[in-house]
Amino acid sequence: MKGIQQQALVRGLSVMIIFAGEGDAAVQAKAIQTVIERSVMGILLVAIDLDPANETLLESANIPFLFISMTLKNSEFPFISSNDFDIGYQATKYLINKGHRKIGFIATDLHSFIGNLRYEGYRDAMRDNQLEFNEDWVRHGHFTYSDGVSAMKHYGKDTELTAMIASSDLAGIGILNQAMSYGMKVPDRLAILVVDGTYLCDIVRPKLTSLTQSFFEMGAKGMDMLVSESFKDFYSMYTPIKITERESV
Amino acid sequence: MKGIQQQALVRGLSVMIIFAGEGDAAVQAKAIQTVIERSVMGILLVAIDLDPANETLLESANIPFLFISMTLKNSEFPFISSNDFDIGYQATKYLINKGHRKIGFIATDLHSFIGNLRYEGYRDAMRDNQLEFNEDWVRHGHFTYSDGVSAMKHYGKDTELTAMIASSDLAGIGILNQAMSYGMKVPDRLAILVVDGTYLCDIVRPKLTSLTQSFFEMGAKGMDMLVSESFKDFYSMYTPIKITERESV
Repeated sequence: MKGIQQQALVRGLSVMIIFAGEGDAAVQAKAIQTVIERSVMGILLVAIDLDPANETLLESANIPFLFISMTLKNSEFPFISSNDFDIGYQATKYLINKGHRKIGFIATDLHSFIGNLRYEGYRDAMRDNQLEFNEDWVRHGHFTYSDGVSAMKHYGKDTELTAMIASSDLAGIGILNQAMSYGMKVPDRLAILVVDGTYLCDIVRPKLTSLTQSFFEMGAKGMDMLVSESFKDFYSMYTPIKITERESV
Repeated sequence: MKGIQQQALVRGLSVMIIFAGEGDAAVQAKAIQTVIERSVMGILLVAIDLDPANETLLESANIPFLFISMTLKNSEFPFISSNDFDIGYQATKYLINKGHRKIGFIATDLHSFIGNLRYEGYRDAMRDNQLEFNEDWVRHGHFTYSDGVSAMKHYGKDTELTAMIASSDLAGIGILNQAMSYGMKVPDRLAILVVDGTYLCDIVRPKLTSLTQSFFEMGAKGMDMLVSESFKDFYSMYTPIKITERESV
């Protein structure tokens, strides 16, 4: 997919990629038919932080659109997403309830709208529990595996932190691997809570405890809305979040 | 994405999903423009085993198309993929050269065209090296994590096998996790070689040695061909495979 994307960038993205897969003949037929008829009936923008310059273009398309997994500053556009303030707040509160006082907040893009909301959630949860924190406990990043690794390297094996919140499953695995290579026991020496809760949490050892987002529901609800009677029925909504306890806290 | 797909199945797949992402304004603009103009110029079918009933439909579309990461029985359709016979053969030969004689072949879909090619590669490599094997060493599956787990459970911790080839990274992680829960040391007691070689191999411990496919090149080459001068220039081609040594063999 990366290879396709890079070339698409150079050549102009006018290729439809079909990977509905799973060998269902009816789905395949529908997908091909759609391309033949050019009958696209809606646009789902998944996890895209839209450039302001493109807002007008999108509005002019006269095709229903909806943002999935992305809270928007521009409140005119409908989105289906988690409440990112709550993500930061609930994750932090969960760790505090487990007895942690020195909690790191790792790999969130603090320059983004959603990153800021999560940070505010973290900050408010700490303050509401009369806990101090310093800015070094908060590590800016882009949700990547290597953000997790480099954060752990920055803190080192003697870190005063007893718990970390990673802003993605992959960032949490980066923290985990680096901590284990230091010989630190997870969760005894260091607890790790990751945000997202995809299948990745289940295939690493120890399994990662997560603040789980409802990605499936976001997608299904988004499709429902796109095929609803009227574009005017579109509204923004939050899908539920929850803590999934596994083995890392 | 799963949620979107399920609803798309019910409602008819006439929604374009944009997740070019990465915040590049020019790419976003191009993607939106494409939807507005309905100017799809080609179809890439990624890892799709096309139902025969849809072949005519696809041909009638009068839009260039190309299969990516999928070898086809129907030799009239162009594809860009690995040579699946070679995947089975090279993987097996590599383990034989490392001294293994009892090698399992796990989680391949033996009913599929590509699954059969891989199996033939495994079989021929064993025979060319005067090694016997019995059918119980070959476990049918669908490339999933749980196929790996259940294969390992089937063989048990006292298995005579000293090495296994997993037909996907995830299936290999399933084997790894179940083997570790038996207290088996990887690679000393059991070597694991996985087919694919995505980032998943690097984030588990021990890191998984892989027969690596050139997915990036498949995608890039596929885009190149789609935007070439003439549909008639399309041809099928194999991209290279190689062994990437990590820690599990």
